Formats: sequence, C-alpha cells, structure tokens
Amino acid sequence: MEKIESFLSIVENYKAVFLDSYGVLKNFRGLIEGVQETLDFIQDRGIEFRILTNDASRSQEQQSESFTRLGLQGIPPEKIVTSGMMAKQYLQLKIKGGKVAYLGTANAAHYIMQANLESVAIADLDKHDLDDIKAMVFLDDEGFDWNYDINKTVNLIRKKNMPIIVANSDNLYPVAKNDVSIATGAIAKLVESIINKKFIHFGKPDTQMFNFAFDDLNSNGRAFNKEEILMVGDTLHTDILGGNKFGVKTVLVLSGNTTPGEVEMNIRSSGIIPDYICESIVG
Amino acid sequence: MEKIESFLSIVENYKAVFLDSYGVLKNFRGLIEGVQETLDFIQDRGIEFRILTNDASRSQEQQSESFTRLGLQGIPPEKIVTSGMMAKQYLQLKIKGGKVAYLGTANAAHYIMQANLESVAIADLDKHDLDDIKAMVFLDDEGFDWNYDINKTVNLIRKKNMPIIVANSDNLYPVAKNDVSIATGAIAKLVESIINKKFIHFGKPDTQMFNFAFDDLNSNGRAFNKEEILMVGDTLHTDILGGNKFGVKTVLVLSGNTTPGEVEMNIRSSGIIPDYICESIVG
Amino acid sequence: MEKIESFLSIVENYKAVFLDSYGVLKNFRGLIEGVQETLDFIQDRGIEFRILTNDASRSQEQQSESFTRLGLQGIPPEKIVTSGMMAKQYLQLKIKGGKVAYLGTANAAHYIMQANLESVAIADLDKHDLDDIKAMVFLDDEGFDWNYDINKTVNLIRKKNMPIIVANSDNLYPVAKNDVSIATGAIAKLVESIINKKFIHFGKPDTQMFNFAFDDLNSNGRAFNKEEILMVGDTLHTDILGGNKFGVKTVLVLSGNTTPGEVEMNIRSSGIIPDYICESIVG
Amino acid sequence: MEKIESFLSIVENYKAVFLDSYGVLKNFRGLIEGVQETLDFIQDRGIEFRILTNDASRSQEQQSESFTRLGLQGIPPEKIVTSGMMAKQYLQLKIKGGKVAYLGTANAAHYIMQANLESVAIADLDKHDLDDIKAMVFLDDEGFDWNYDINKTVNLIRKKNMPIIVANSDNLYPVAKNDVSIATGAIAKLVESIINKKFIHFGKPDTQMFNFAFDDLNSNGRAFNKEEILMVGDTLHTDILGGNKFGVKTVLVLSGNTTPGEVEMNIRSSGIIPDYICESIVG
Repeated sequence: MEKIESFLSIVENYKAVFLDSYGVLKNFRGLIEGVQETLDFIQDRGIEFRILTNDASRSQEQQSESFTRLGLQGIPPEKIVTSGMMAKQYLQLKIKGGKVAYLGTANAAHYIMQANLESVAIADLDKHDLDDIKAMVFLDDEGFDWNYDINKTVNLIRKKNMPIIVANSDNLYPVAKNDVSIATGAIAKLVESIINKKFIHFGKPDTQMFNFAFDDLNSNGRAFNKEEILMVGDTLHTDILGGNKFGVKTVLVLSGNTTPGEVEMNIRSSGIIPDYICESIVG
Repeated sequence: MEKIESFLSIVENYKAVFLDSYGVLKNFRGLIEGVQETLDFIQDRGIEFRILTNDASRSQEQQSESFTRLGLQGIPPEKIVTSGMMAKQYLQLKIKGGKVAYLGTANAAHYIMQANLESVAIADLDKHDLDDIKAMVFLDDEGFDWNYDINKTVNLIRKKNMPIIVANSDNLYPVAKNDVSIATGAIAKLVESIINKKFIHFGKPDTQMFNFAFDDLNSNGRAFNKEEILMVGDTLHTDILGGNKFGVKTVLVLSGNTTPGEVEMNIRSSGIIPDYICESIVG
Repeated sequence: MEKIESFLSIVENYKAVFLDSYGVLKNFRGLIEGVQETLDFIQDRGIEFRILTNDASRSQEQQSESFTRLGLQGIPPEKIVTSGMMAKQYLQLKIKGGKVAYLGTANAAHYIMQANLESVAIADLDKHDLDDIKAMVFLDDEGFDWNYDINKTVNLIRKKNMPIIVANSDNLYPVAKNDVSIATGAIAKLVESIINKKFIHFGKPDTQMFNFAFDDLNSNGRAFNKEEILMVGDTLHTDILGGNKFGVKTVLVLSGNTTPGEVEMNIRSSGIIPDYICESIVG
Repeated sequence: MEKIESFLSIVENYKAVFLDSYGVLKNFRGLIEGVQETLDFIQDRGIEFRILTNDASRSQEQQSESFTRLGLQGIPPEKIVTSGMMAKQYLQLKIKGGKVAYLGTANAAHYIMQANLESVAIADLDKHDLDDIKAMVFLDDEGFDWNYDINKTVNLIRKKNMPIIVANSDNLYPVAKNDVSIATGAIAKLVESIINKKFIHFGKPDTQMFNFAFDDLNSNGRAFNKEEILMVGDTLHTDILGGNKFGVKTVLVLSGNTTPGEVEMNIRSSGIIPDYICESIVG
C-alpha cells in the first residue's frame, strides 16, 4: 500500500477530488511544474474538485487570483475552501454584534467583516475598554509585532472570558527550501497553554472543512458518496489524518512537507497511513 | 448570559434540539424526574430532536430499549446518534476486509460486525498471527482484563502499523453520587501517549456527530439551518465545546457532570461558554 | 494546614530559609514594605538565608545591586542562586569550546562568557556557518525581535542537533497590577513543541537550584539537614512544588502570583500543598 | 561523537561511574554476558561505581541479592540507588504520621514502612474513612487489579487533596525480546491527566538520584567532581537526558531499550545527545 503510484491512474477512478494547495499545487518557488495538465485531466473527465487550504490570511477571491497570477487556470473562488471560512461561519452563527479582536493582517480581518462584525487589531485595542469585545481570532502570523501584541493578547484573554477562535491550526509553513516559519496555530497554542483555556480550532485535520466541501458538492443536484472522493495532501498530520477520519481515500504526495527520504519513517512513527503515495499530482 | 433560565422557555424558540443522554435524560439513579414531560412538550410543538451520546458499548436499538425500560417513551432507535456509529462508518468506508481487534465487551463488537468485518477481542488475539488484523478499536472500558489486555494492546500497536480508532473519547463517567469510572477515551489516550502515534478519535466535542445528526434532520425534505438548533448537555468539554464549534446555540444543564457550585468557576477556567444555563431540562 | 499564619513565628523555628525574590521580597512596584525588618529578624537570629530566583537575565552581582538600589540592605551576591547559574554550570561541564547561540539581552549572555564560551546572539548568527555553534540557550524574553529571531531559532534547531538549554522555566511574570508578560520558559516550550525535541530546563520547580543552595549552606563547616530549612515563595507550581519535592517545609506567601481570593481554589485544583500560608514575609 | 567506542577505554579515564541496571547489567534473559569482567575491571582500577535504577518495587538489599542470584558478584546494597529511595526520603521528610495508600505489591510497600509510616493497599482502603490517609504512592505496576484499583485511586484523589508520589517515572519496561509492559509512570500519568493535579515524580531523568549518588560518593572523605564521573544507560529519555543535565559525561549502550538500527534516528529526533555510544559495557 505504500509503494509510489501514478496520480492520474488513481484519480481517474474517483468522481471528486479534494486538493490541498501548498505542497500540492504550488510551493515556495511558485507553481509545481505540470499541475495545469493534471487539473485539465481532472476537468476533462468531469471529476469535480475542491481546494482545501488551512489559510485564514486571504479570501477565496484572493486565492483564486493568486493561482491565476502564478499561471494556473481554472480555479474559480467558489471551488476554494479555507479554514478562514470556517471561522467566519462560526462568527456569523455565534457572535451577535460587538467587536472582534484579531491577530493578523488587516487583509485577513475581512473574514470578520464578512460576518457583519467590527474588527479591531490587537495593536489598536484600548485595554481599558473591553466591554464591546465579544470574541478574539487568531488569523495570521503576520501583520503584528510579536513581542508586544502576543503579550497584549495574553492579558486580554486573562481579563475577558469570551470565545477564542483559531482560524488556522498549522504549526509551521515552508518559506524556502530548508526554512520554515511559525504559523498561526503554534502562536495560538502557545497562548492557550499559558492561559489554560480551550480555544476553538478550525482547519484540517478537523473534518469540518471536509464536510463543508462535501455538502457543497452535493448541493448542486449531483449525489456524491464518500467512497467516490479522494483527498490529496502533502502533510500526514493535517491532510491525511483529516481525510482518513472523514472517510475518504487519501493520497500523500511527496512534493511538499513530506520528502521521499522521510516518508516511510514518518508513516511508521505517526501511525497515519495514506491509502496511496505519489511523487506529486503530476504524471 | 450565565443566569439560570427555564429550559422550556428556551427550547420553544427552536425547530430542533440535540440532547446528550447521560446527565440530561438520565443519571446513575435512573431517569431524571420530569424528563417525560419535557420530551412530550418538545414533540407536541413539532420540535425535532436527536440524542447525541458518546457511547460505543450499545447499539441504537439497545439504547432505545434502555430508555423504554427506564420508563421514557418516544425515543426510537433512529433518533439516537452514538459515537460508536461514527466508528462503524469509518470502518465501513476505510477498512476493506480482514479482522478488527477490539477492547470492550462482545456486545460492543456489534459495531464492527455491522461494518461487515470480523471482530477479535484483544484477549483472543494470537500475537504471532497478526497478518489479518487490519485495524484496532477502543470500544468500551468493560469486558476485558485491564492488566493483561491493555499491555497486549500496546504490544500489538507497536508491532503492526494500522489505523487505531477510539470510538468514545470520554475520560470519565459517573457511577454513583460521588464516584466516577475511567472511560474508554482515557485508556486510549494512555496507550496513545506511550506509543506516540496518532489515533482516530470519535465522539463529542468533535463535530462529526453533530454533522451526522444535522444531515439526518435535513434528509427528510425539511430544511433546518444551524440557527434553529439547540444543543443541550451537562459537560462543558464535550457537549458545549462541540455545539459551539458546530455553530448551534448551547444549553448547559446542571443535572450531571457540572454542579451548581462549580459552574461559574468551570466556565471561567475553561473558557467554554454556553449560551444558556438551566438547572435541568425539566421546567 | 491552610490557615494564614505569622511568618516570623514560623521562620524562627528553622536554621535556614530559602526565599524566592519576585513576589516575596519585591514586586512590580518595588520593595514590599517591611521586608527589611524581616531580613534583619532572620539575620539577628543567626538564620542562614539564600535567594532562589528563576532569572537568567542578570548576574548575582547585578541582582544584589538591584536590591541595594531598591533600598534592601544585606543581600550579598553570594547568597543569590539564579537559574542562569545552573545553565552556566551545565555549559562549563558539558560544552568544550565553540560558540553558544542565545536568545536574550547582551547582558544575559554574560552567563555564557563566564563558562569560557563565546556567545552569539541569534540575530547575529550566520545561518550558513553553523559549524562552530555547539549549543543554544534561551536566556531572556527581552533583547530580540520575536517575529524574526524565534523563527530563526526554530530553523537553527531543525538543522543542527545540539544541546538546547532553557535557563529560566517560568511561563509568565507580572509587569503591573493586572498585567503579565510571557517569560523565557513559555517561548522555549513553544519551540520545543514545534520541533518535538527535548530541551534541558533549569529553574524551580526542578530541584537542582535547591541542591545547589543546600550544598552551599553545608560547605562552610556548618551542617544543615533538610528538616531545618524553610522554602518561601509566591508560586505553587515553582517554589512550593520544588520545595516539597526537595523535602523541605514550604511557605506560600500571598504577596505575589497567588492572591488571597484564589489561594484555596488553586491549592485544591493543582494538588500542590504548602505546609504554611502567610500574607507575606512581613509580620 | 556518535561513533561506537570501546567502553573499557572510556571508563578507565573516570574516577566514578553511574550504571543503570536494566539494559546495562541485565535484561529479560538474565545477566548480560561479560558484565562481571567489566565490573572487575572497574573495581581493580579503584573506580567507584553506583547503580542508579528507576525501581520502587524492591529494596536495595533485594536488588543486591538479585544480582548475586543471577551470578554477578560485588554489588553490595549500599551501592544501589533506587527511585523508591527518593520516594521514601520524601515521605520521611514531609509526611508526619498517618497512613500512606499505595498501588503496588506488598513488598514495594516496605519503602513506606521504612519511612515509619503505615501503608494501606488501595484494594484494602475503606473509602468512607480517609481521614488518616496522608499521601498516596504509585510504587509498582504489579500487585493489584487494574480495572478496580486504578478507578478506586482516581476517586480517592478526587476526594482528598494530599501529596501524590510517583516512585518510578518509567512508562514501559521490556519483558521479552519484542514485548514491553506498561510501567508505574504511565499509570500515574494516566491518573494525573484525568485528575489534572500535579504529582511528585521521582526517578531519572530527574537529577535527584544523581545528586544522591554524588553526595554519597563525596561523603567518605574522597572528593569527586562532576567531570570525573560517567553515567551509563540504555535509555535516552531517562539515563542520558538526566546525566547530561546533571553535568556528567554520558554513555549510551545498545544492549537494552535503544537498538543499533534506531540509535541515530532516536538521537536526531529527540535531541538527546550522549557523549559516547558503546555496544554494551562489555569490551
């Protein structure tokens, strides 16, 4: 089960495919060579696809534009599911009025505004006037001063008991061939462990994004069942664990976080077992 | 938001209600007095309900019969959602053939057989013949010898890399007024931490049971949205955290795990905030 | 055992006393009023004392000067034991030559230089020339840019397998009446959990500082046994847990991290039980 | 630094050596062949030695007899340091009168009696009469019914706030070539995580046993410093981590928990680095 296989010969047996973005379609260098052909192959055969990405820094539209800019055609905004959308949905359903404090860029705060709520960057928060603050969201690792604003966040959460949302659960993301950067999820977990409260985490491996994409597939008159769907990702602890738990078949690709030299050891030591392993989605 | 309110005056504003079983409908003494009236009230007003229970030891049918035996009428099997059903669904979708080893009673193993797989109690496992074993499930804390069978499980999982499923994530359950018993989830976490592999956990606070109940509600032609649904439970870390994350309104009742004397401190220290607090679902 | 008692009536029964610094002798406002009298009382009765502080940002000499500057007389450098000294001792014994990278102020790096090793701030590290780097030390939460330098540290530790030392295990320290700041220990634990390696942590509750102070007491010809020693601190998880484990009697004071309103709940929920509780060391 | 070296050529440069027992001197089959010659070599050269073992099930005397019975001469009781002795010392210093409840064999309870305290097996505890119970100790994984007595322990600790001592921190121990058994430390951590209280853990990697052995070496008129001492063990997370932190040189042997095939990966993934690696202490 752990031998390397051709992605095209696998995907052609499915009616829909969920694709992680980073490490599957693109990496720090840009588009992974050949992915346009694979996407065309999928669409030519009438296989439905959705992009599932742990990203709360950019909207569906911005992510779609980014693919176009990199040279990948055929990914409209509505085919992209982000963990930021899960956070937005939570805010819409559970927070009625008031302001939401956030860590991240002003751009990421669009997710809050789309939930019809007012957003306040932690940096701009008046710590003596917290009455209107109804929730706090970890959106992005960029856009703020870590020394100052993470400490301000700790003090905010100690003083005001309210829902704390983590819109991206990733710990690390690659920024160059051998370099990584700490992601939102790790910053949130630092604060969570210090404060000893339970935050509400969105993003793979949680199955909520899978459910969202699944319901979306089935909302247009067609009927998909889980056995007809394939999840493709480069990370065992998010893409593969989540896909397995949701009940779809899973493909681990070696074009991102997991390298050919480590894959066997990583599967053995984690106990997270993909149904297939492919070099990439190309070929 | 944290004042005690009348359950009936809350529930009448919703189109559907999800009810935890233990601590809400019954406790170690039997049925909680007055729940029949509340159930009748719900049904008379055409409010849909589902029972969501972290239990993998008994089937829907057995749970329904158990309610009848205790004297509670009107809970047919199909209105009960158990974490064991999530585990069964996983086995059906992801394990094709072979045997599934389990910890639990022979009765709990019905969940494995319903997935068309052969079950083997850990006690009966021949440790020199593991080829056919395709997965392992933690089903129940009863039905086996802890000294012997937990150790056998540790050795099985060290030797064979395969999916490990936890069909009930609870750590503790009450067995008498001031006494608790260690539940399946805690036994599984002990083994998981020793082995350092990732198991696949089902049960609240995970949102998969909520999604299952939600899809079931919407499968009969009626259309429910999340804002019309209420989740009721006695435990902050499972019922309320899960309900909040799924995006429905939540009621914490004080007839089970959370007592009136602790409720304020528990909410403050955990950061898990219900929308309403009621003494019980009665009155 | 948990009633409030007079500190002087307790301490007079002991031959030596170990005192935490922050929250016991001083706080964010400066010296705690009346501590000079208590220190005089202790010295007049021939009771030996040592200050045990989780601080790796300043040397014994600097800490002694700081007490003098605040107006507290009679604390010479040699009576102060810092967690930075434990880190220094480790470096002296285990790292032979080469450079030690650090997070912290240039002042804190004196601990590295006192171990006869060359220090390099993470900010100044050439990431393409790591051959000479033999260890890395978390010294202080100040003196560096968190966004940039914590990420650089993560990448350093991923690339080079070497001892990583945490010279102060504290998670938080108070900076104003209701405000705290994240301390070195929490930053180190963030990196440790991301990297999944074991760092070497110094500072209370670890008993090494207690042993150091104990050996120092017994090095001058006098003989102390543990039953004649009292540990005084304001924090259950460091001072009291460590003192209990080392085998000396413990006093929790309510002039710092633990407040009168919380003390009973904190002891009950943590299971860390001091032998005595006093408002402060005054009176 | 990680090449395999001859143990005898290393040890002859030291004045004292600390040896782990299981995996170094013996294993599940009995004595490791050739260890008598190494012990003779050490003694002939006047090198002092101590055995440091995470064992709270048997006394120094019993362990010494056990070596003799296996055929290893020259290990008198006073050269053996057990984690049970650390627990005993804690009880002597901190618990004044009353009874101590325990999990373990009646034989292990000798550590409690040597502290002049009365011992009560959890199985024999009257749960309605807890007034006299002053502490609880996890001594051994054998001698009790796990189903019944671990649950009884959980309820005891929930009802009575008192010191909880873990006399052996190990998670696993080998019982056959490829089989392990859950050790006391893992059972204690299960209860600790359920109860969410801080227990007091003894045993390597904690440095208290190293300090005890070090003080003992220096108590007979001879003067040892840490640079003249070598720690030898088969387990990175206990022997090597603890020895490194204490400040002595460390040897990892491959005759126990760590196998030649895994050693490089284990060192890289844990970040715990021994100063030397040897096949065994033989040759």
